[in-house]
Amino acid sequence: MVLTPEEVCAEVLERITPKQGERARILRLAEDLRRRVEEAAKEGGIEAEARVEGSVAKDTWLRGEPDIDIFLRLPPTLGREDLGVVGLKIARRATLGFKQVERFAEHPYLECFVDGVRVNIVPCYRVERGLWLSATDRTPFHTDYVKPLLNERLVGEIRLLKRFMKGIGVYGAEIRIGGFSGYLCELLILQYGSFMGNLKSAADWRGQEIIDYEDHYKGRKAELRKVFGGDPLIVIDPVDKGRNVAAAVREGRLNEFIAAARAFLEKPSLSFFYPSPVETFKADQLVNVIRARGSALLFLRFGSVGAVPDVLWGQLYRTQKSLGKMLQRFDFKILRDAVWSNEEDINVFVFELETRLLPPIRRHLGPPLEKRVECKKFLRKHLGVESTVSGPRVEGNRWVVETRRKYFDAVELLKEELRDGGRSVGVADLLSQTIAKSFQVLVNEEILPLHSSNGDFAKFLTEYLKGRPRWLD
Amino acid sequence: MVLTPEEVCAEVLERITPKQGERARILRLAEDLRRRVEEAAKEGGIEAEARVEGSVAKDTWLRGEPDIDIFLRLPPTLGREDLGVVGLKIARRATLGFKQVERFAEHPYLECFVDGVRVNIVPCYRVERGLWLSATDRTPFHTDYVKPLLNERLVGEIRLLKRFMKGIGVYGAEIRIGGFSGYLCELLILQYGSFMGNLKSAADWRGQEIIDYEDHYKGRKAELRKVFGGDPLIVIDPVDKGRNVAAAVREGRLNEFIAAARAFLEKPSLSFFYPSPVETFKADQLVNVIRARGSALLFLRFGSVGAVPDVLWGQLYRTQKSLGKMLQRFDFKILRDAVWSNEEDINVFVFELETRLLPPIRRHLGPPLEKRVECKKFLRKHLGVESTVSGPRVEGNRWVVETRRKYFDAVELLKEELRDGGRSVGVADLLSQTIAKSFQVLVNEEILPLHSSNGDFAKFLTEYLKGRPRWLD
Repeated sequence: MVLTPEEVCAEVLERITPKQGERARILRLAEDLRRRVEEAAKEGGIEAEARVEGSVAKDTWLRGEPDIDIFLRLPPTLGREDLGVVGLKIARRATLGFKQVERFAEHPYLECFVDGVRVNIVPCYRVERGLWLSATDRTPFHTDYVKPLLNERLVGEIRLLKRFMKGIGVYGAEIRIGGFSGYLCELLILQYGSFMGNLKSAADWRGQEIIDYEDHYKGRKAELRKVFGGDPLIVIDPVDKGRNVAAAVREGRLNEFIAAARAFLEKPSLSFFYPSPVETFKADQLVNVIRARGSALLFLRFGSVGAVPDVLWGQLYRTQKSLGKMLQRFDFKILRDAVWSNEEDINVFVFELETRLLPPIRRHLGPPLEKRVECKKFLRKHLGVESTVSGPRVEGNRWVVETRRKYFDAVELLKEELRDGGRSVGVADLLSQTIAKSFQVLVNEEILPLHSSNGDFAKFLTEYLKGRPRWLD
Repeated sequence: MVLTPEEVCAEVLERITPKQGERARILRLAEDLRRRVEEAAKEGGIEAEARVEGSVAKDTWLRGEPDIDIFLRLPPTLGREDLGVVGLKIARRATLGFKQVERFAEHPYLECFVDGVRVNIVPCYRVERGLWLSATDRTPFHTDYVKPLLNERLVGEIRLLKRFMKGIGVYGAEIRIGGFSGYLCELLILQYGSFMGNLKSAADWRGQEIIDYEDHYKGRKAELRKVFGGDPLIVIDPVDKGRNVAAAVREGRLNEFIAAARAFLEKPSLSFFYPSPVETFKADQLVNVIRARGSALLFLRFGSVGAVPDVLWGQLYRTQKSLGKMLQRFDFKILRDAVWSNEEDINVFVFELETRLLPPIRRHLGPPLEKRVECKKFLRKHLGVESTVSGPRVEGNRWVVETRRKYFDAVELLKEELRDGGRSVGVADLLSQTIAKSFQVLVNEEILPLHSSNGDFAKFLTEYLKGRPRWLD
């Protein structure tokens, strides 16, 4: 059955709009917590204001997925160190008896679970607009800015956009995702008036799209590229023209959104919002698929890093890039690479190479003949030495030599260069400490045990091997 | 013992200057043949002049290696076809009783062996300077131009340069070599005054060196690049400013000469003039050397082409380039390629690849997201088709897919694409006819039987594997 976009959106909206009872319960809970936090501050002798922020404050949350954000606005006289310490202390006291997890974004905050609902208690400074002392100080201003502009229809459009982005995997500003925050979704809907309006525009975004809802840069768009450099999407924060709300959005995520928008406009379907679950490969399937590819899948596995997710993922991505570059520097051709982590005790890099083994000799281009001094140096270096397998000789207008490679086996290369942690080849600090202790390099089906024992990894690997977003199926 | 350049040159000169007796004998023989050719023409009723040209006429030949060139200057009224027919008839009659071989450059000529000396009888038109009708018409003018400018010292310098070029393998304008002609050597010595002067200058040649001994282009050098395009060395013919005497010199040969000149200046030695013979690899050595390289040596062998050398080598080189490009188009990485021929019944291309086998899948970059129409086409082409192994998906700012390769085995690729002669992949006509009948693709030590049975090939292959000019040793 072919559905119209309107029919699909209506169906989704029906599913994601909180029912009256749920909404009332969450609002009550939020207000209750807000009061407790404020009281806990008062008891601690701190003059502070607590506010409900985020999607609950703006009524833009999705049914069944409420996240209550309580912001504790502390006096600017508090030092940066104290903000976290004092904030956490108050938050802990306010939620005594519930499950509490200390988290860390730019500074620490407390995550706890109350009646099955996730609650984040975030300390920030009570500053005037523009006089930001910490990254979270803007949040109350965001709420105050957006709320008066919304109505029931717009709130529905925002929910649709969020669900769409969650469905295609681009929702979330955390480093692991590098996608779209809730606030960004709200601004997009304000800008384009509706979910479909946003998709239609996004389908035609090209290059560095700029959205400046408050016209902060009216007639001065050229300035923006200087201020925000290479950010692939620029959405000026209405409450702070110096901030790109889309700063966290990586190019790939942005383009996945664009591609999915086009696909949805062409063939609307519920599956964008609710992708069918991944059917992970069984062991024998996995082995067959890997063998049929004929490439060399190298898995670099190591253990716990002991860092909060944003730090961990930052280091994982950075290291992925460095190790990829290193492999290429030694002439290994990368088909694709990826990284997976359970954010606890298992981290896995995947490097898929054209071939694991290169010939032991390597063609090395020397200087052109016209550079006489360099030619002399080149000859002195390569003539009659053990590493020279063939040559040197003149080819066309330059000297050429074939030399023995340092590494012709990619597994050898990884093992050798990572033995000391690999800091010199660009492994990030915390990862390096873990890797220096121990790591494994597994090739092709040697990954089977992990695949069989860890469902999340199996899902990741299956999706990797298919290499295709589910909404394309 | 370290020799000075002067000592080396004196020693070489001693060896290459014809003794009085040999010179007298050759001159007598040349004059005798000249007269016979002229008489044979007269008997045939053709009014023609025969002249001794080339190194014998100018006394620039090397001891023990005389080549007598007799030019038969025929009336311009003769048609282009007739020039060869008539010329050959006369030449045959004049050398009746001696071994005769019909040869072909731009038009046919007769090679014969008289008293162990090679004699070329070349028909040309008796034209006035500048009114050239065939390529060989200039030769008598070259002789007339050069002869009065020479003296005994210069003749010696020319002989040194020729021997040097022969020693390092860059002497000869035929297509197989793509090097320096005798006339070009003479002009170089006129320009630089001496062998050492030439080497010193050549050592510093860079880019497109221009030599214009008669100053035909005084103050108009820029024009030259238009007239002679990309020729790596431009030596204006004193008797024809529209001709580059060095037109046949390929970039590689030129640079080998430059490199050898530098090496000789740094460390003079007889071995530049008289390289020590190649010690060909024995069978077991060959196998070891090939195995140690770890690359994939593909030998494409086929039989007689039935073409004169210049045509054969032209087609061989052209085809080498085309097949190399084809291999690269299918992602095989060429370390080096080469071609060998006995100019009779064995022709062999060598393609040395990093690996013979590629993974069966290939990463295929699609269009960037901003090209919306192309993206749609790309998805239509690759989504859900059998050849797609993984993807399509968005990476950075473009679509990417992994598809199954048409060929992942280079041997398979060659066998398949050459089955019909390979004209469509750029195999030259005459070669294609031979290849269509039969050819072999041999890998690594499968070449052993040819290596063991053909000394010339063994020498070629040994030098190829060493990949280093002998004068560098």
